[in-house]
Amino acid sequence: MALEGKGGFMELLERLGLGSRRVLILHHDDLGLTHAQNGAYSALGLPTGSVMVPGAWAPAVRGADLGVHLTLTSEWQAPRLRPLTAGESLRDEAGYFPSTLEALWQRARAEEVERELRAQIEAAQRLFSPTHLDTHQGAVMRPDLAEVYLRLAQAYRLVPLIPDTLEGLGVPPPFLPELERLMAEAPFPRVRFLDPYGLPPEERLGFYLGLAHLPSGLYYLAHHSALPTPEGRALPDWATREADYFALAHPEVRRVLAEFHPLTWRAVREALKEGWR
Amino acid sequence: MALEGKGGFMELLERLGLGSRRVLILHHDDLGLTHAQNGAYSALGLPTGSVMVPGAWAPAVRGADLGVHLTLTSEWQAPRLRPLTAGESLRDEAGYFPSTLEALWQRARAEEVERELRAQIEAAQRLFSPTHLDTHQGAVMRPDLAEVYLRLAQAYRLVPLIPDTLEGLGVPPPFLPELERLMAEAPFPRVRFLDPYGLPPEERLGFYLGLAHLPSGLYYLAHHSALPTPEGRALPDWATREADYFALAHPEVRRVLAEFHPLTWRAVREALKEGWR
Repeated sequence: MALEGKGGFMELLERLGLGSRRVLILHHDDLGLTHAQNGAYSALGLPTGSVMVPGAWAPAVRGADLGVHLTLTSEWQAPRLRPLTAGESLRDEAGYFPSTLEALWQRARAEEVERELRAQIEAAQRLFSPTHLDTHQGAVMRPDLAEVYLRLAQAYRLVPLIPDTLEGLGVPPPFLPELERLMAEAPFPRVRFLDPYGLPPEERLGFYLGLAHLPSGLYYLAHHSALPTPEGRALPDWATREADYFALAHPEVRRVLAEFHPLTWRAVREALKEGWR
Repeated sequence: MALEGKGGFMELLERLGLGSRRVLILHHDDLGLTHAQNGAYSALGLPTGSVMVPGAWAPAVRGADLGVHLTLTSEWQAPRLRPLTAGESLRDEAGYFPSTLEALWQRARAEEVERELRAQIEAAQRLFSPTHLDTHQGAVMRPDLAEVYLRLAQAYRLVPLIPDTLEGLGVPPPFLPELERLMAEAPFPRVRFLDPYGLPPEERLGFYLGLAHLPSGLYYLAHHSALPTPEGRALPDWATREADYFALAHPEVRRVLAEFHPLTWRAVREALKEGWR
């Protein structure tokens, strides 16, 4: 095993010489979905994010620390995404991914999910050199899909996002015990998960400035920055995406972020190198 | 047979009571590909166009006279499209449609093309009520693919775009005799095909104003209007798309167009109704 459960997180920081530091993986979600999302990634100049491979804009993403934003749902009327593979349990009547997690979890067969996730990882490898895995909307929280996710992370040697707690992530209670067990056994570090997505846009700047008060530890902050363009604003949740973008472009927020050690999944992957089973 | 070859075009106009008129099908290509393309369709308020079903924005297109813009190529780095079906001969190494007609025609197996085109038509039928067929970049000019195209038009009772001449359309010379024979035998009207796509943008307004001088006949004008947005401008050919948009929004061009009888594919389909084999 690479690193044992929760202990692995401290061991990892020690190995990176960051034991007493405040360490931040600042992560751009949903790249490849729209031009506006990609444009914000370029404009912000922050290296870490993950790409929705079924998205039409995926081939245009270029960056230093990109992962695969494994996709099994497509929640908007448009842009709407289709699976790469033929699995009937992964698509609605019109051939698109289901629009809700509930619909996905009711229908999805684990073997069809595995085939699709492998296809997305292998398609990503033809576009860029991925360093990590995470999932759109947390689609792999159903325990049998979490097992696939963690197994593929090892098979492809890509570090999976694993939060240090499942509280507040909207996991259906029946999933919790098995999911907790899988995560505890997974040989990967777990990160303190921060996500301002649900905050009202007008509180966004305050949220980012408030990071100044965090104690030492390994934090993972997911943001959804998108440019303020007509295409970007066609998404129903455009306001939260723009709020992330404006906050992360703000000089005061940049000053706060500069107090953290900026960690990449690439560095984590490198640190785990010896330990991949 | 519905209507015999070239004669069918006059017969159709007579049947529609338009024998001596100047008749125009004004057609918006590439809907569903980008938000900018869809936005121009909404803004212009012209009913006729066709949708690239593999495009992420396809489900957002709503309109009175929409067809299926059958897609077998994906020519830009992004947005980049994938086939709906699994045919290996329809995709490049990264799983996308080939980026050139040459690459498509070298590899594509006709039975895999047929499966894909049927999937696109049937997926379109779940999004809207299609009236007609045409093809992105003329991908079905390879004669065996043209045979599939014309056969599916009849099978699904969708009127196919067939130009009255192949001159100037860039058809490879070896394809010409067989393609000409198939088109002559097809029981559908043929239209005089106009397409300002290749004209320099600064000549666009003049082109549209020049329509005032056309004699009577059935014209088909393909335009590629897109909104002037950052997403729209991410396409290498954005300037020609914007030039169409600005020209078609121009009051003088609208005045010229108003002198034509505006024909829809829906009306053509209705006129052919009795004759579908």
